[in-house]
Amino acid sequence: MERIAIIDLGSNSIRFVIMQIGAHGSYKLVYQEKKSIRLAEGMTLDSRQLTEEAQQRALQCLTVYAHIMAVQKVKKVLAVATAAVRNAVNGASFLKRVRLNTGIPMTIISGKAEAALGFSGVAHTIDRKDFLLFDLGGASVEISLVKNKKRVHSISIPLGAVTLTEMFHSSGSVPYDMINEIKNFIQKKLAEIPWFPKEPMEVIGVGGTVRNLAKVHQRASSYPLPKLHNYNLPVEDLFALVKSICGKTYEERQKISGLSEERADIIIAGALMVQEIVRKAKSSYLTISGCGLREGLFFHYYDPIYDREGSWKQNMLISSVKNYLYTLPLEYDFHTAYVTAMALSMFDQWKKMHRLNDRMRNLLYAAGLLHDTGTIVNYYSHARHSAYITANAHIFGWSHREQIMCALICAFHHGYSSKFLKSNSHVRILSDLQMKEVRMMALFLSLAEGLDESHEQCITRLVCTASREALDLRIYTSRDNFDVPAHAVQHLIKDFAKTFRRPLRIQWFPGSSSRNELAEEAVKLDFKPNE
Amino acid sequence: MERIAIIDLGSNSIRFVIMQIGAHGSYKLVYQEKKSIRLAEGMTLDSRQLTEEAQQRALQCLTVYAHIMAVQKVKKVLAVATAAVRNAVNGASFLKRVRLNTGIPMTIISGKAEAALGFSGVAHTIDRKDFLLFDLGGASVEISLVKNKKRVHSISIPLGAVTLTEMFHSSGSVPYDMINEIKNFIQKKLAEIPWFPKEPMEVIGVGGTVRNLAKVHQRASSYPLPKLHNYNLPVEDLFALVKSICGKTYEERQKISGLSEERADIIIAGALMVQEIVRKAKSSYLTISGCGLREGLFFHYYDPIYDREGSWKQNMLISSVKNYLYTLPLEYDFHTAYVTAMALSMFDQWKKMHRLNDRMRNLLYAAGLLHDTGTIVNYYSHARHSAYITANAHIFGWSHREQIMCALICAFHHGYSSKFLKSNSHVRILSDLQMKEVRMMALFLSLAEGLDESHEQCITRLVCTASREALDLRIYTSRDNFDVPAHAVQHLIKDFAKTFRRPLRIQWFPGSSSRNELAEEAVKLDFKPNE
Repeated sequence: MERIAIIDLGSNSIRFVIMQIGAHGSYKLVYQEKKSIRLAEGMTLDSRQLTEEAQQRALQCLTVYAHIMAVQKVKKVLAVATAAVRNAVNGASFLKRVRLNTGIPMTIISGKAEAALGFSGVAHTIDRKDFLLFDLGGASVEISLVKNKKRVHSISIPLGAVTLTEMFHSSGSVPYDMINEIKNFIQKKLAEIPWFPKEPMEVIGVGGTVRNLAKVHQRASSYPLPKLHNYNLPVEDLFALVKSICGKTYEERQKISGLSEERADIIIAGALMVQEIVRKAKSSYLTISGCGLREGLFFHYYDPIYDREGSWKQNMLISSVKNYLYTLPLEYDFHTAYVTAMALSMFDQWKKMHRLNDRMRNLLYAAGLLHDTGTIVNYYSHARHSAYITANAHIFGWSHREQIMCALICAFHHGYSSKFLKSNSHVRILSDLQMKEVRMMALFLSLAEGLDESHEQCITRLVCTASREALDLRIYTSRDNFDVPAHAVQHLIKDFAKTFRRPLRIQWFPGSSSRNELAEEAVKLDFKPNE
Repeated sequence: MERIAIIDLGSNSIRFVIMQIGAHGSYKLVYQEKKSIRLAEGMTLDSRQLTEEAQQRALQCLTVYAHIMAVQKVKKVLAVATAAVRNAVNGASFLKRVRLNTGIPMTIISGKAEAALGFSGVAHTIDRKDFLLFDLGGASVEISLVKNKKRVHSISIPLGAVTLTEMFHSSGSVPYDMINEIKNFIQKKLAEIPWFPKEPMEVIGVGGTVRNLAKVHQRASSYPLPKLHNYNLPVEDLFALVKSICGKTYEERQKISGLSEERADIIIAGALMVQEIVRKAKSSYLTISGCGLREGLFFHYYDPIYDREGSWKQNMLISSVKNYLYTLPLEYDFHTAYVTAMALSMFDQWKKMHRLNDRMRNLLYAAGLLHDTGTIVNYYSHARHSAYITANAHIFGWSHREQIMCALICAFHHGYSSKFLKSNSHVRILSDLQMKEVRMMALFLSLAEGLDESHEQCITRLVCTASREALDLRIYTSRDNFDVPAHAVQHLIKDFAKTFRRPLRIQWFPGSSSRNELAEEAVKLDFKPNE
């Protein structure tokens, strides 16, 4: 077990995170703090001096962090300062003070490094190939072009929500003309980027401004999930939101639900920057990333030691699910992998029949691994608890909708429950088609679960075929008596017929196989929780 | 780590449970199964023979259990047979067959032992002093009188839901006269119990019949908690429910929401027995216990080895909370105990002001220990996740309302949230007064949490006084700089004034104490989760 602290000293806020690395190299966040210390405040473009007051605020905060690190037994700290310190003439001497006063070895990172680390944080946590990425901070914005998961261009522009606000004095009420002036100014700056894509491009945004915009949007639409990372904000809504914010006085902005009060002054400049980037990229929505520089710093340290093979690149979702599971106190039980292998075997063999795509296969895979997590809350009703955990766990590589679909598959792993659906507000983000897909996958999982209800792993092989008249399932078992699994799956047959519009015919072949092919498949999933 | 299997072979059903004992002697259920095998079926009062078919059903089930025990590495099995085998002339030879066929050493327990074990299962899991306890099975009912947590009388009557049904042929539609006949018969049997209390007495019921009655009641009233143990069914509702069931045909009973289909035949006789016991005891409600014989068997094994001091007797709730917490992967963090100690210190010193009773103190204690459990789901929004876990965890020693109150205190440990309340259907089982009590206790916990936001444990002493004009809190700290805790509690001051109708005045005494009295109190809580 080791603990690593990450400190990100920005122009507007300071962020402090402690990550813990445990069994199987599984990592998790164990402490997090953010203070709005406004290091860049009072730093003009002419003088470029960190003020004494701002330095004192930072030092006081860092002294506390140093103490917390000692208390929490943190052995390694990765501390970086970005634009404010980078641009200040007294930046280097300030970092010496930090070292002297707190013992924290903080380094300045270049705009280029900031872009690279921010990209890494996003690339590890959002499963997308081509996009324009921007990280809007207090004193700078980093923009990168990503193609096929590789960063092909980056730029750091020394303009952030704080600096733009000071430049245009836009912290109070801002007249319409001034809004246009800021827009034009930003457009001019963006026009100078030679590689800015001409064709429409999806946009991912990082930073306090985008997070706040997304929060306001979620509040206004009573979004049922309390999650920002990988949230998609439609471009029409974004533009309407920015327009509404720009028309409000400072006092009115302080009262916007979802907007942090501390940000009411700098939000106009920040929101306009976001809007102009998204507009220029012709994206139909803005995706919010809650991960960026800090996560990039972490993975920069973590990958070479704990993930040399880059498992997250091969299958981000499954690698993240396993990572989460390895942080839990689940006793090693082959049942989990075995049930997953059976469900996937049915999915694959019946592919032509159900026509679900590979993303859905991955969701079923994840649901298989997660289906018993609820037992850590309570063995009773654990399917429901597994659904709660799946819907809320810190897992990367899926959209919000996919996460809720996976949670529902877990919830239904002993069979479909309309009662559970009624009590679950998350469900309303799913379409009817997605609900139908959930029911199909839940049937594969619940059939697999029923077949290993006794945790004996005595099903050796499944042969699934389909005709227009019926679905046929031939089940080979290592034991002569198959009453227990036969009884356990009985109640699913009706739901199968309803969902796939054909009867399910099951044939049993007891004691007929020497090899346990399904157990072999399960071993290949390489899932071994802690004892 | 050791695993123990418990098998309870009743007249109607067979129950199989695997318990795991881990770190700090913490136990949890890891596997559970129930089959309705109807061992007593076809056994008449004259012949008293277990039929060959019934024996085969049991043997088949036990063969599977034996295999599961091997797979799940169970070293110890506690297997008992009750009334059906006890009353059968071929009971002993049947158990020999069990031993020979499955290797499971099953013993017959006497009615007296059954009553004693059932009492033990209830006494360990429901925190009540005086009550009448009954366990209604398929072929017998055990009734015990409990005074001051001690069983003073017990009786086992060879009449159960199955035997009564066969005696009166009441599995189909039952005419009104017959209902009365069954009632009279039961009343006569109960009248023969010399120690049956004359004065009104609370009643706790165990067994499939009471569980099913409670489920039907919960469904009908859309009860928001999916929990039966310690559920209170008001006597008027019970009588109305029994009346309604008795008036229905077999087919109609099969469709009652909450009633297991397999029980539709024997429910009338069972329900009448329950009704007559509760009526005779003049209780105003029936409390359902989900625990009984099986748990009694477990504790009979567990207590002498792992809990020689009987911690559950001293404080059932806290002992159960600790047991649950020790099953989780929470890193040892003194913060939890320290925050709990601070919250309790405020509660105690301000007792005259808030006038909350000792049960409430215990709830605050539990909430303190549970407040960070949500981090196992996700560090982000962990207060909300802690509330979910608290509301659903397998913890004994509180009422449903108390459990929800404790969950809300956890939810509010960073401050009150009306948004959380709105989205939580459990809240509606609480009265306005209970919500007010929650707000008071949540303030103590959130103030304590704020004071140790940095996990540094630098508050050494709290002195809480109250006058009509104000609440005064004097805070002694070991560090000179108290900006961090001062900032962290700032947002609570308004809520304090609103809740207690007086302003809260805080005075700081930095660097003024050599002893950390609060840390000493925290150590006394004796809470040490696993590393």
